[in-house]
Amino acid sequence: MSDRSEAAGIALGERLLAGDRRTLARLLSHVEAEDAVGRAGLTRVYPATGRGHRIGVTGPPGAGKSTLVNAVIGVYRDLGRQVGVLAIDPSSPLTGGATLGDRIRMVDRYADEGVFIRSLASRGQRGGLARATIAAAHLLDAAGFDPILIETVGAGQDEVAIAAAAHSVVVVQVPGLGDDIQTIKAGILEIGDLLVVNKADRPGAEITARDLRRMLALGTGAKPWTPPVLLTSASTGQGVVELQGALDVHRSALETTPAGHGATGSAWDERVRGIAGGEVRALLRITLERWLDRGGRDGTVVAAIADVASRRRTATDAAEALVRGAVRDLDPAG
Amino acid sequence: MSDRSEAAGIALGERLLAGDRRTLARLLSHVEAEDAVGRAGLTRVYPATGRGHRIGVTGPPGAGKSTLVNAVIGVYRDLGRQVGVLAIDPSSPLTGGATLGDRIRMVDRYADEGVFIRSLASRGQRGGLARATIAAAHLLDAAGFDPILIETVGAGQDEVAIAAAAHSVVVVQVPGLGDDIQTIKAGILEIGDLLVVNKADRPGAEITARDLRRMLALGTGAKPWTPPVLLTSASTGQGVVELQGALDVHRSALETTPAGHGATGSAWDERVRGIAGGEVRALLRITLERWLDRGGRDGTVVAAIADVASRRRTATDAAEALVRGAVRDLDPAG
Repeated sequence: MSDRSEAAGIALGERLLAGDRRTLARLLSHVEAEDAVGRAGLTRVYPATGRGHRIGVTGPPGAGKSTLVNAVIGVYRDLGRQVGVLAIDPSSPLTGGATLGDRIRMVDRYADEGVFIRSLASRGQRGGLARATIAAAHLLDAAGFDPILIETVGAGQDEVAIAAAAHSVVVVQVPGLGDDIQTIKAGILEIGDLLVVNKADRPGAEITARDLRRMLALGTGAKPWTPPVLLTSASTGQGVVELQGALDVHRSALETTPAGHGATGSAWDERVRGIAGGEVRALLRITLERWLDRGGRDGTVVAAIADVASRRRTATDAAEALVRGAVRDLDPAG
Repeated sequence: MSDRSEAAGIALGERLLAGDRRTLARLLSHVEAEDAVGRAGLTRVYPATGRGHRIGVTGPPGAGKSTLVNAVIGVYRDLGRQVGVLAIDPSSPLTGGATLGDRIRMVDRYADEGVFIRSLASRGQRGGLARATIAAAHLLDAAGFDPILIETVGAGQDEVAIAAAAHSVVVVQVPGLGDDIQTIKAGILEIGDLLVVNKADRPGAEITARDLRRMLALGTGAKPWTPPVLLTSASTGQGVVELQGALDVHRSALETTPAGHGATGSAWDERVRGIAGGEVRALLRITLERWLDRGGRDGTVVAAIADVASRRRTATDAAEALVRGAVRDLDPAG
């Protein structure tokens, strides 16, 4: 990292902390590009982060996540809160790719200084999207946004990593899942802090909600938090205020519940540690993948693979040799 | 690794190479347990591997993969070939979990000395299934089985890694995919060397086959191998002989086509290198994941995560420090 890039990043970070919102877009671009300016800026602002409520919103395509997010933004704005939104779903009408009608309904959010919406797309580099999204959430946090809503389609490794970066995860479903409900329930019960049956004006919404509640009741053991199942309709406004309220309740519950498993602090602290752990692990994984993509130092991986292909060494022996000898070459900044 | 375990593994390996088939089951158990005996045995026999045709058979649940595999085994046996089968699909009727009727139809394969069938299930350790399956394929190869059929349900990371360990990948579909065909085509075109429309006695089989051929024709550029689309019905026997023939043709084509991208040797050699590369990469990933699961050496990962959670360091800085300082602790044998 050059001193010049580092100084530029620190300067941008300080302007962001001083309240200059225009700096945010610039710093986000550096963070997305994974350059030295972005890294230094993030390092500068990072100690000021940790205040904003990070909310993941996930669910299948067509579940109406973006429209629901748009409606929830309105409730937060009515409460005077500054809302940051990161949209990972490339088809999100919040950031493009939707019908003209959707865009017109969304566009008022862009005129609102208290709302910052950013779309993030894959940038080619492996793992880049998850890395950029988590870093972008830190920047929005440092800029004072609370909540920070992260909308993903909930499929693929990147999205899973992103969902793991939230304090609260909203899983959005639609009525009439039918037989599929058996298939998806395990995932829902694991990652969702709040379950939403959206498009609740459609037939079957109550049945879907009842099925979800029944499955939650089947969960083993006493849990400190039972995910509420909420019925919403972004088009009629049904349940949107309640959803925002439930998110505040979830945050409070995390803050007032002791951490489990004998850990120190609150459930909130525990979740913050979980987020940090996910971030560190994801970065280590990305580091390994990129190192492999480069073939290792001086082609050591390529040479090891040739040995395995020609039966001179087993993959186990080759992998061990690579780890012992060459892994010092790994560099997360690379 | 103790000298005693190593000696025991080498002895088992030598008995396997000498043609003692009963050793195979024992060595497989050691390899599945990922113990030192299995590792030494695999190292001993590995130079003798590389002859058997490794064939991945994948497709959605209910596509009739196991019944098709059972039928293809019959064709190989009629040709006097020794067939090894690894079933990863837990619902495979080849290895259990199926209806009684299925089992009765399958059971004759077990009475045949020229067929070895082994079911592999997840063993708890992360990445263990893929690791064990690839190692098991090496053992079957060393024992002289050719082909080695690897049946998976084709979903999840482990299964993808397993499919990448084959010389030829058969993707099994069923008629009437309807709109879904658009969604799955990318994946099929990428991993399938042979596309099979199974249950071809059902309505719509020809349409599905035509759609698949049309999509293949849309593929860009001249390719050395265009996957054939075959219609099969394991119940009537339709197309099963042709499928076995197409597999032999694919192997011959790989052996007689020069490697692409200016690489040396044949397309077969190139694929063998690809398999070796996938194996080395998978082992390095597994090594990292297990190291993370253990918290790193002396809790270094845990301490780094606490730093990130408390905002003392960014995850990027923490991951870099971990890689630079502590990664020497990584040990694939662990």
